[in-house]
Amino acid sequence: MDNEKLSSKTAGKPIRCKAAVCREAGEPLVLEEIMVAPSSPFEVRIRIICTSLCHSDITFWKLKVPPACFPRILGHEAVGVVESVGENVDEVAEGDVVIPIFLSDCGECVDCCSNKSNLCSKFPFKVHPWMPRYETSRFTDLKGDALYHFLFVSSFSEYTVVDITHVVKIDPAIPPNKACLFGCCIATGVGAACKTANVEAGSTVVIFGLGSVGLAVAKGAKLCGANRIIGVDVNPEKFEIGKIFGVTEFINSKDCGDKSLSQVIEEITGGGADYCFECVGLTSLVQEAYASCRKGWGKTVVLGVDKPGAQLSFSSFDVLHSGKILTGALFGGMKAKSDLPVLLKRYMDKELQVDEFITHEVKFEDINKAFELLTEGKSIRCVIWMDK
Amino acid sequence: MDNEKLSSKTAGKPIRCKAAVCREAGEPLVLEEIMVAPSSPFEVRIRIICTSLCHSDITFWKLKVPPACFPRILGHEAVGVVESVGENVDEVAEGDVVIPIFLSDCGECVDCCSNKSNLCSKFPFKVHPWMPRYETSRFTDLKGDALYHFLFVSSFSEYTVVDITHVVKIDPAIPPNKACLFGCCIATGVGAACKTANVEAGSTVVIFGLGSVGLAVAKGAKLCGANRIIGVDVNPEKFEIGKIFGVTEFINSKDCGDKSLSQVIEEITGGGADYCFECVGLTSLVQEAYASCRKGWGKTVVLGVDKPGAQLSFSSFDVLHSGKILTGALFGGMKAKSDLPVLLKRYMDKELQVDEFITHEVKFEDINKAFELLTEGKSIRCVIWMDK
Ligand SMILES: [Zn+2]
Ligand SMILES: [Zn+2]
Ligand SMILES: [Zn+2]
Ligand SMILES: [Zn+2]
Repeated sequence: MDNEKLSSKTAGKPIRCKAAVCREAGEPLVLEEIMVAPSSPFEVRIRIICTSLCHSDITFWKLKVPPACFPRILGHEAVGVVESVGENVDEVAEGDVVIPIFLSDCGECVDCCSNKSNLCSKFPFKVHPWMPRYETSRFTDLKGDALYHFLFVSSFSEYTVVDITHVVKIDPAIPPNKACLFGCCIATGVGAACKTANVEAGSTVVIFGLGSVGLAVAKGAKLCGANRIIGVDVNPEKFEIGKIFGVTEFINSKDCGDKSLSQVIEEITGGGADYCFECVGLTSLVQEAYASCRKGWGKTVVLGVDKPGAQLSFSSFDVLHSGKILTGALFGGMKAKSDLPVLLKRYMDKELQVDEFITHEVKFEDINKAFELLTEGKSIRCVIWMDK
Repeated sequence: MDNEKLSSKTAGKPIRCKAAVCREAGEPLVLEEIMVAPSSPFEVRIRIICTSLCHSDITFWKLKVPPACFPRILGHEAVGVVESVGENVDEVAEGDVVIPIFLSDCGECVDCCSNKSNLCSKFPFKVHPWMPRYETSRFTDLKGDALYHFLFVSSFSEYTVVDITHVVKIDPAIPPNKACLFGCCIATGVGAACKTANVEAGSTVVIFGLGSVGLAVAKGAKLCGANRIIGVDVNPEKFEIGKIFGVTEFINSKDCGDKSLSQVIEEITGGGADYCFECVGLTSLVQEAYASCRKGWGKTVVLGVDKPGAQLSFSSFDVLHSGKILTGALFGGMKAKSDLPVLLKRYMDKELQVDEFITHEVKFEDINKAFELLTEGKSIRCVIWMDK
């Protein structure tokens, strides 16, 4: 087997390969040769097959202040093949197809042992420049300088090193360009609907922001049997796109006239939505979402990442008297090692279609094109193939 | 039977009886003769057996600005006997023992038909001076001037008129001084733990404020099998009292030194509580409660009534990244006509003890004594007997 041969040659040694390095905020990534160190104990070195570009990559590509840091290898939605493993790794072996995940699932801490939490306490989520366990990098440039990691994944490289707690082994029959999307966007959106909110069949859902996560929420809500899936966006083109993902009605938030968005939603739903998902990351929109959900049982799920320090404000009277529920979720509340395989099986069983997310595919050398497409709002997901 | 004889004489006619009228904010109630009109259609006239005094009565007794209004008959925790019923009332009949409830349960609207909501849409909760259905009063003083209703109950009167949607028929074997407490305090606290939060056996609960509702939350948490029930109060005497209700640990929020209350709670719980209940009605305390509950699944339930216009503020980052849940409840999320009888049965089955709530009992003519005891923090519940 090709992988085994490769492994036999490279295991335990540094690998020289190509990576797209972000050397300066907002500047095109630089395709350069780098060195990828072998796995330390509990780590896995992965040959990336393909990776897609997510909005969080854009956010940290543009960001000029901490937790931004440069030079850094971005990327966190990917699929790859295990090239070699470090000591104490039994869960995967060379040749296994895996998805690296930005959330740890250590299997040992209280959170990982509970089915209620996906927020590992042993290796908590943070926007960290190092490996989770050692506070060191596995990447160096050819001058010998360390390159920073991103979200414990750093998939914009032919090879990366990921902690075993951040790796999920998957069925190798899953097409790689589909598999990579489950590393962030699809798990986040579908999980938010199916796990965090646990959308009931027949219910009414409102999705604020029809970006990729919002569209994945629509997929999830449809999977749960939601009856009405109302998409809200400022871009009217999103309605036609949304329809493909299950959106049944559209509100252009710029066309509400004298009414607030929540008034419009209250009217068309006859009292408010059963579930509201905020997928933009705007304080005012979270508050509109909360106001738009139905008294008695309405649930608002925050998925959008707001700017640091942003504060959400709610009337104490409303919180007490409305019986509404407010929550938020990372990775859609999904546990990487137990929930993700179930979701992937639903994809393989054709219950869940994801082809519509892939609007573009480019070669690794054209990765900056993927950045252009996403920042210009032209792509939902652009898949970047490492070896094509 | 005494009630039947009474009814045969009085049904359909106004009743002259004694009531404790609040004529001016903060002034002692005036015991005076009033006229109570017969029930209009869908209404029930009730002879009050006994009533207890709740903090919300105090709030609206003191309040000088709307929705306060005078002269008003306060009181909303009571038990009584149906004296006569208006047209279209089949659910109860003369002689039935009933608890009037400040929340409607119409049995017809979407909320009342759902097991997820206790917030009737047909007769929404409001602090309203009239009957829910007609916007008129059934009380007049001897000069012929209308007296305002309070929370659709107005139990500080020998007779009151309540809409049938606000009435729950109960087992006449339940001692009246216990039964009345289920009209607000016990249902609110126990319901918040058992229904709104649905406390899991073995979990850790923190109760902010050991007033009557907080103590009822402790009862509910114990009933659900909570392992640790941590009471927080500024009054150290509350710990000994709390123990009787199931509180296992105590934090004096004035004794946290350099640490915030949530830091202290995070330390002693090893990462935060599973459930936090805010029973005071202070913005800052709700925020401490939210901060004190555990990432991943911690749930904060707001029960305290803050001043009008109070705003709760949460970091957008925390809401997204913590996976915590924020909600609130009126009447502990309990549905008057379906959940309350189940709770009363648990009392009759001796699963739930409530004797400890009754610290004082007075005659109706001494009702102002009950106000003194509660405002001075000397009573948990003072039961006021109408005919003793
Ligand atoms: Zn863990
Ligand atoms: Zn992402
Ligand atoms: Zn109703
Ligand atoms: Zn009350």
